Amino acid sequence: MDPLADRYAARTHGMKSSEIRALFSVVSRPEVVSLAGGMPAVTALPLDVVGSMIGELVSGMGAQTLQYGSGQGDPRLRERICDVMALEGILDASPSEVVVTVGSQQGLDLVTRVFVDPGDTILAEGPSYVGALGVFQAAQAHVRHVEMDDDGLIPEALEQALLECRARGDRVKFLYTVPNYHNPAGVTLSEERREAVMAIAEQYDLLVIEDNPYGLLGFEHEPMRALRARNDERVIYLGSFSKTFSPGLRVGWVLAPLAVREKLVLATEAQVLCPPSLTQYAVARYLDTQPWQQQIKVFTELYRERRDATLESLAALMPRGTTWSKPDGGFYVWLKLPEGLDAKLMQPRAVAAHVAYVPGIGFYADGSGREHMRLSYCYPEPDQIREGVRRLARVIEAELDLHSTFGSVDTGTFRAVTSTPRPSSRSVYPPPVIGPANGAEGGEPAI
Amino acid sequence: MDPLADRYAARTHGMKSSEIRALFSVVSRPEVVSLAGGMPAVTALPLDVVGSMIGELVSGMGAQTLQYGSGQGDPRLRERICDVMALEGILDASPSEVVVTVGSQQGLDLVTRVFVDPGDTILAEGPSYVGALGVFQAAQAHVRHVEMDDDGLIPEALEQALLECRARGDRVKFLYTVPNYHNPAGVTLSEERREAVMAIAEQYDLLVIEDNPYGLLGFEHEPMRALRARNDERVIYLGSFSKTFSPGLRVGWVLAPLAVREKLVLATEAQVLCPPSLTQYAVARYLDTQPWQQQIKVFTELYRERRDATLESLAALMPRGTTWSKPDGGFYVWLKLPEGLDAKLMQPRAVAAHVAYVPGIGFYADGSGREHMRLSYCYPEPDQIREGVRRLARVIEAELDLHSTFGSVDTGTFRAVTSTPRPSSRSVYPPPVIGPANGAEGGEPAI
Repeated sequence: MDPLADRYAARTHGMKSSEIRALFSVVSRPEVVSLAGGMPAVTALPLDVVGSMIGELVSGMGAQTLQYGSGQGDPRLRERICDVMALEGILDASPSEVVVTVGSQQGLDLVTRVFVDPGDTILAEGPSYVGALGVFQAAQAHVRHVEMDDDGLIPEALEQALLECRARGDRVKFLYTVPNYHNPAGVTLSEERREAVMAIAEQYDLLVIEDNPYGLLGFEHEPMRALRARNDERVIYLGSFSKTFSPGLRVGWVLAPLAVREKLVLATEAQVLCPPSLTQYAVARYLDTQPWQQQIKVFTELYRERRDATLESLAALMPRGTTWSKPDGGFYVWLKLPEGLDAKLMQPRAVAAHVAYVPGIGFYADGSGREHMRLSYCYPEPDQIREGVRRLARVIEAELDLHSTFGSVDTGTFRAVTSTPRPSSRSVYPPPVIGPANGAEGGEPAI
Repeated sequence: MDPLADRYAARTHGMKSSEIRALFSVVSRPEVVSLAGGMPAVTALPLDVVGSMIGELVSGMGAQTLQYGSGQGDPRLRERICDVMALEGILDASPSEVVVTVGSQQGLDLVTRVFVDPGDTILAEGPSYVGALGVFQAAQAHVRHVEMDDDGLIPEALEQALLECRARGDRVKFLYTVPNYHNPAGVTLSEERREAVMAIAEQYDLLVIEDNPYGLLGFEHEPMRALRARNDERVIYLGSFSKTFSPGLRVGWVLAPLAVREKLVLATEAQVLCPPSLTQYAVARYLDTQPWQQQIKVFTELYRERRDATLESLAALMPRGTTWSKPDGGFYVWLKLPEGLDAKLMQPRAVAAHVAYVPGIGFYADGSGREHMRLSYCYPEPDQIREGVRRLARVIEAELDLHSTFGSVDTGTFRAVTSTPRPSSRSVYPPPVIGPANGAEGGEPAI
């Protein structure tokens, strides 16, 4: 019983725990191979060097690094951020258009707060980043998913969505898109489609939020030219150092036209006063003094090896009817189960078999995605990945056996059962204790 | 011209720059004595020791300190936070009820997001913390100020406000109060009034947000017993390490009943995913290994000296008719000008005379407070303070001379002139360039 239950804001009633947080207590068990979380391999950093660097920042510049800073963020860091964005073809960004944020998550939250009223519509890929869906839910926005394929967002589907929204009178505030190495889909928006998407944005007067945490983490080719590089008026760009340096520093940024930047600074001042000074100085100093582009190569080599382990194991072990995306960068593979299987219902059995993934429904605002799961290869070592995929393959095979024994079970029936394992399967896979979703002590966030 | 002007959210139109941010470019000029900002004296910390400590955290524990953490915050830090709160009589707090936030500013923002719908009413002292007013404005809440005097919030005024709100049908979501060394009023809620306020809260079913960044910074006596120590069901407590350790780490917290804590964790996950790991580990390690209570004594001795310099100078130099609060802790003196003077209108003349303060109107949601100003003694050295007060006294005297020359000018006339200095005074004080409010490069936030 919550004695304050009757006085929460309307937005609070819609808040719910993500599919990823529900896995907290599971993925931290050492016997479980977690293909669930999106934690970068920070131990590949030269920790001694970074440690000395940060220690010296405090000893030598404590009056700045331990003091309040400006709401917009450290000017020196904002300059260096412009250098980083230049790698993706954004050559005209000015430090005055950059707002430093507590991770790009805060950037997205600020943009959403500045633009979105309850009931507004946001277009987003289907599937879409789970943390973005959390922001949109808290903003009481309606999310309209736009279909994607191996080349990313489908322009015709975007246009169709815009026409439908226009016909219904929906107020579309923006398109939210992750063009590079999509989380969770693992696909990248092709060059032709980038042009097509921006042409549609122009034609339909659409604002585009380009969320790009993975853009520099490609395995096969140079970074692609950002949407923001093609249009500086209708693209707001979100960047992050979480995947190229460290997520524990929580340093991200927004690049926005000056008028929007002004609103974002007011919004961030109301939210956190200013981002932490120490972490901003740490990133700026790292970019100034360390071979950060070489370090990104170290990261991508490591992730490429893990991606290879994942794709090879999947090809060798997955039962017929299972399909998956083939990412050429980033952290994620998006897997589709053989027809009739449900990743959410299967999850307790997978955890009992000591492998964890994130069920696909977490990446949709509309309840679809049950036949999908996200596999992250960024954190486990290749051998663990192979073992994890082996366990997962066995779970899927057992699930298929159940199907052939009990006959084809339609998805509707699965849905009605919600997350409790079917009684018939209990004897096969003892249901483990998952959760409590909100009693988390430690664990990883919804990335 | 802002091409996106027609698509902002309703809340965005109400956002405006604070009175403090408008002073950015002024207070950073070396010839100006700033009594405006609330920056703690971080150079009084043992910077070498803190630097080594943080450097070792990264070198030795990079896998944790540079990695994502949980949305609720580091469990070890939450334990130590409970120890800190025990100093103010909160003996029953559990780490599971604590949410670590990016400064207590984020804590207040989260609480407001969880409870407040547009149009809801929030009760707050008059004057109230400017950063809180920014949060409430962004939440589209109505702020009803409650009068205070030298003993803090007046219980009878609180009851009167509640009755009026009830009669009008206003949805009062909570009372926001800073009971210790109030920002900006400099006063502390007396023991009797703490009991009276909590009795009223009980009687009127009122939720209380206790914001307590300064509670351990008393000059004359032991910390007072927190409101939260008297009632664990209807008080949500906000704490901060910004004034007892470092604001640049941005580590604060919320202590809330479990059901509310659950909502706060969901809200913070949507906002920032998780607070920075490095800064949390830094604070926890600092509390674990450094003589932090002794360091607080170092801080309070230093602030006491600056408070003394302020009060002595004010007593010696201020013209008759000027009055001010006598804080026995914290950072601020609240000054009332002689009748007929307006701190906002006087500001350009003060800056021309090389002294800065924050006009009182920044601390009211309803436009009152023009006869007041906030003086901060936390940052400048005692000699600077004395010089600043001397300059301020001269400005006020000149202002009074103008009044006697031109006859009594009523406040209404002043108001109509807004912030442009009256032409008649231009020859006396050349108006300096203040601003641009939103073009800030660096500077300090609204504290």
